[in-house]
Amino acid sequence: MSGREFFTTRTVAEALTGFRPAHRTPVEHVPLSAALHRVPAAAIPAPHDLPGFAKSTVDGFAVRAADTYGASEGLPSYLDLLGAVRMGTAPTVAVRAGGCVAMPTGGVLPEGADAVVMIEFTAETMPGTIEVTRPVAPGGGLVRANDDVTAGAPLVPGGRPLRAPELGLLAAAGVTSVPVHARPRVTIISTGDEVVPPETASLRPGQVRDATASALAGLILDAGGDPTIAGIVSDEPGALKNKLTEVLPHSDLVVVSAGSSVGARDETAGAVAAVGDVWCHGLAIKPGKPTLLAECSGVPVIGLPGNPLSALVVFGQIGIPLVWRLCGCATPPPRPNLRARLSRNLASAAGRLDVIQVRLADGVAEPLFGPSALLSVLTRADGYLLIPEPATGLDSGADVAVTLYT
Amino acid sequence: MSGREFFTTRTVAEALTGFRPAHRTPVEHVPLSAALHRVPAAAIPAPHDLPGFAKSTVDGFAVRAADTYGASEGLPSYLDLLGAVRMGTAPTVAVRAGGCVAMPTGGVLPEGADAVVMIEFTAETMPGTIEVTRPVAPGGGLVRANDDVTAGAPLVPGGRPLRAPELGLLAAAGVTSVPVHARPRVTIISTGDEVVPPETASLRPGQVRDATASALAGLILDAGGDPTIAGIVSDEPGALKNKLTEVLPHSDLVVVSAGSSVGARDETAGAVAAVGDVWCHGLAIKPGKPTLLAECSGVPVIGLPGNPLSALVVFGQIGIPLVWRLCGCATPPPRPNLRARLSRNLASAAGRLDVIQVRLADGVAEPLFGPSALLSVLTRADGYLLIPEPATGLDSGADVAVTLYT
Repeated sequence: MSGREFFTTRTVAEALTGFRPAHRTPVEHVPLSAALHRVPAAAIPAPHDLPGFAKSTVDGFAVRAADTYGASEGLPSYLDLLGAVRMGTAPTVAVRAGGCVAMPTGGVLPEGADAVVMIEFTAETMPGTIEVTRPVAPGGGLVRANDDVTAGAPLVPGGRPLRAPELGLLAAAGVTSVPVHARPRVTIISTGDEVVPPETASLRPGQVRDATASALAGLILDAGGDPTIAGIVSDEPGALKNKLTEVLPHSDLVVVSAGSSVGARDETAGAVAAVGDVWCHGLAIKPGKPTLLAECSGVPVIGLPGNPLSALVVFGQIGIPLVWRLCGCATPPPRPNLRARLSRNLASAAGRLDVIQVRLADGVAEPLFGPSALLSVLTRADGYLLIPEPATGLDSGADVAVTLYT
Repeated sequence: MSGREFFTTRTVAEALTGFRPAHRTPVEHVPLSAALHRVPAAAIPAPHDLPGFAKSTVDGFAVRAADTYGASEGLPSYLDLLGAVRMGTAPTVAVRAGGCVAMPTGGVLPEGADAVVMIEFTAETMPGTIEVTRPVAPGGGLVRANDDVTAGAPLVPGGRPLRAPELGLLAAAGVTSVPVHARPRVTIISTGDEVVPPETASLRPGQVRDATASALAGLILDAGGDPTIAGIVSDEPGALKNKLTEVLPHSDLVVVSAGSSVGARDETAGAVAAVGDVWCHGLAIKPGKPTLLAECSGVPVIGLPGNPLSALVVFGQIGIPLVWRLCGCATPPPRPNLRARLSRNLASAAGRLDVIQVRLADGVAEPLFGPSALLSVLTRADGYLLIPEPATGLDSGADVAVTLYT
């Protein structure tokens, strides 16, 4: 007798808002070189003003802006050249009224100056005298000491994966060790008497190599997780429960890639129920209905459908947001999208999320059909479109958003 | 005297089509667990049919389809139950006319059967007799031995970064070691007397920590490259040339993050010209004009502008496609895009590509302005929009495509 009837079917929307285990990965410190796409636990404040000193953004001359007012080609201002600033060193001379100091781009603004005139609008007509042919306003040609970030203000926000330029800003501030949530350890358990490791050179009739685990590991890496392929568990009663008990203490998320037979599915539900609380068994999604969500000793567990295509579709909708959330990221990074015109009518049941694989050509999205036993439906697709839960279908010619695979 | 005048300024479009060094990274074999986003050197053929045997996609009974024609609730077909197929093993019984064999989802189709009836449309009314209440067509309820991929046909194409489901298909085919182009070794050289390593605890006046190298390393990782931060070279004559000579033999691409002063820029051009051929010095892009492209001993070299913002913008437009091309990928993966309404008029010079940083809110793209000396312009941005080379600007309210940062 199947245990499924005891459990509730939920919509994907309900699962995304309702199945939110509180578990978060601990905070660890990583060097900048390993911090890309990692999620800071909290905003990281600037230890000091950035850039830290007022500096020139042009090659030219530091001046008092007032000394240039009214300057023109016909009636230049003449300023005494008091010295020069060298890159990377403190100025050794200040600017006084009627004077100027030669500046390289990036040089420290000398005391007394409030602007930098671009070299293009100057000429050294006599040695020691600079002719200025265009006025500059105070603040012109320079950035102030805190124009990038003020001391104490956030360099980067918490909870958002670090992007490349943010690594630069952290480096500029001298933050070379970044407190981030640990990558969620995601353990992948495959089940099914018919499933053998990918390394198996030749198959006996009826055997299949484990495709789902390798593909899931890829999706987990993309979501910032740290996948472990924990091997294949037989359909023997008790085997999965034992494996779960073994891996739960070392996992932030456990994914069970179920065998495809009814017996295997029921075994998964029974084993999970024996070690934790089943939140739902059955998800209103196509493909992917026989999905199970549970929490075992505080660790979320996803029981995926047996077909690789269904398993990967469900993991994309439910598992990826969960991996991000486990490391403190509520808003996963955007995924590439393209508007396209649907090539044919698509029917759907109201209350169910349909995930349709499509090929794209010339702005037209062509749905790919085929049994969800076939992984090639997914590998041939350029992306997918969703028929939302309230809809009963989409019309040929409809403008649809296709999420592209990367 | 500057050497710049000897070199040509090019447009970004010209650079993308014209600056195409022939160098490609060598092919290496990596395990599936390390193959995500790696670029196969050529299409990888299926060593055998996949799934490799005809199998059931439903729980039910293997039949001869003809035996079910006309079956209905009112007038079922009655079939002799000849046995059962067990998961992962060869059938021990064939189907003959008038007979059927019990099948789990994923089981091997027995000889003599051409369809599988779903269990929902059957009943075992008497022990050993199965009542079928709905007809099934030949091929129903099953996939054929080569429905996923036929032996010899490509599992994955060459030249396109591997996506997660493709790792699954390779695993299913027993391909656990994948021939891919090596990750391009990208050496990052920083220059400038004012530049100090990010680890520098306290700065002297005028010093800045190297921000660009860490940010570039992030962009390079995202593009599938293997970045090495080779340190900071002083503006001393000859220093950069010596460093280039040292790193070129171990690099697939060299990126020089130039000092910001005119002197530093000229030093870069001179050093690169001394060890290779300068393709252009000056790119019609804003920000980022003082960009240099060269080929030294077959290795492409990019000389970036001194300002971090300019450097990262140029590397995004020119460097990232180059890193992909070095590992045999002509079409980099799609990047997330969003249509938005521009909040204000933007002017541009015809013949120049403008890269405008924007913040997004409620479908409106708000340009972020600020000196390109400020890295925070980039870290505050949600993405960027392009004003193409022929355009002279964009009008407020224009529908623009914003490429999102991830």
